[in-house]
Amino acid sequence: MNDTAFNSDQSLALRLATQEDVGLILDFIRQLAEYERLSHEVVADEATLRASLFGDRRVAEVVIALWEGAPAGFALFFHNFSTFLGLPGIYLEDLFVIPEMRGKGIGQALLSHLASIAIKRGCGRLEWWVLDWNVDAIKFYERLGAQPMDEWTTYRVTGEALERLAASTP
Amino acid sequence: MNDTAFNSDQSLALRLATQEDVGLILDFIRQLAEYERLSHEVVADEATLRASLFGDRRVAEVVIALWEGAPAGFALFFHNFSTFLGLPGIYLEDLFVIPEMRGKGIGQALLSHLASIAIKRGCGRLEWWVLDWNVDAIKFYERLGAQPMDEWTTYRVTGEALERLAASTP
Repeated sequence: MNDTAFNSDQSLALRLATQEDVGLILDFIRQLAEYERLSHEVVADEATLRASLFGDRRVAEVVIALWEGAPAGFALFFHNFSTFLGLPGIYLEDLFVIPEMRGKGIGQALLSHLASIAIKRGCGRLEWWVLDWNVDAIKFYERLGAQPMDEWTTYRVTGEALERLAASTP
Repeated sequence: MNDTAFNSDQSLALRLATQEDVGLILDFIRQLAEYERLSHEVVADEATLRASLFGDRRVAEVVIALWEGAPAGFALFFHNFSTFLGLPGIYLEDLFVIPEMRGKGIGQALLSHLASIAIKRGCGRLEWWVLDWNVDAIKFYERLGAQPMDEWTTYRVTGEALERLAASTP
C-alpha cells in the first residue's frame, strides 16, 4: 500500500501506523472497549501491543485515520485464510472512529482502504464481527455490501480452560 | 513445537505438514466441505494452497494426524490477534477426521495439540467457528471447555462487493 492515502479535499488522510503510534492505538482500543461495554476485558499494554504490531513476529497491522492532521480513528487487521478459496483474506479486528469525528465518512474510508489492500494482496475476502445489539453498525455494514454469516458461531477456549485442554488426553 | 507428537501407545502421531502433503490436505478440505454441505464453495487448488502454506508469505499452518501410519485427519490454523488482550491467538480454520477414523480421540488430540502450541507461543486464546446445525460438534467442543461467542455475528465482503467497496468513496 502507499504510505498515505487522502480523500478528495485532503481533509482525511490514512496511513500505516508506526511504533510512535502505540500509545494512541492503546487509547483507541480502550475507547472502543468502553463503547462495546467490554472495558473489563482490556488487559493490553504498550509492551504487548508493540511486540505484536512491530516486533519480530508481527501478527497484525494498523491503519490510522487523520482528520485535518489530528488522529480520528483506526483499523487493526491481520491475515486469515480460507481453505475453501485456498487464499488468504483480511480480518478486521477493530474499527473505531472517535465520537466527535463521526459522520465524516471516516469509517467507510477505512473499510474501503482495507478492501483495496485485500485486492492488492490477492485476498479473497474482508471479514469482521459485530455485536448483535450494535444495530447502527450492522445497517452501515450491510449498506457496504457485507453479508452476515449468521449460521455460524465462534467458540473460544481461553485462560484455565486452555491449559486444561493442552494437558488433556482423549 | 516438536516435529511429531504421539499418544501413549503410539498408534496416533501428530506432525506438521510439509509440501508433500498438499494433495492430501486438499483432499481433506474437499471431504470436510462435503460434510458441511459446502462443496460448491471449494475453489482451492494445489497451487494456491502451496503458496499460502509453504510460500514466502506463509499465512497458515497444518498439523496432520496419522493413525497407525495412515493419514486420518488434519487441523489448519493461523494466528489472529486480540486487541483487548494485546496478544496473538490461534484460530483453527479447519478440523477434520475421516469418518472411518472417528471415535479414537483424534479430534480431541488435534485440539489439545493446538492448545499446547497456543501456550508455547504465548497466545491468549484458541478459537474456531462451527455451523449452528452441527450439534454433535458443539457438544464435543463444550465438553472441552469452549464457550460460544453467541452475541457476535461475522460479516463478510467478497467477490464483486469487495471490488465495489475498494472503489467506494464516502
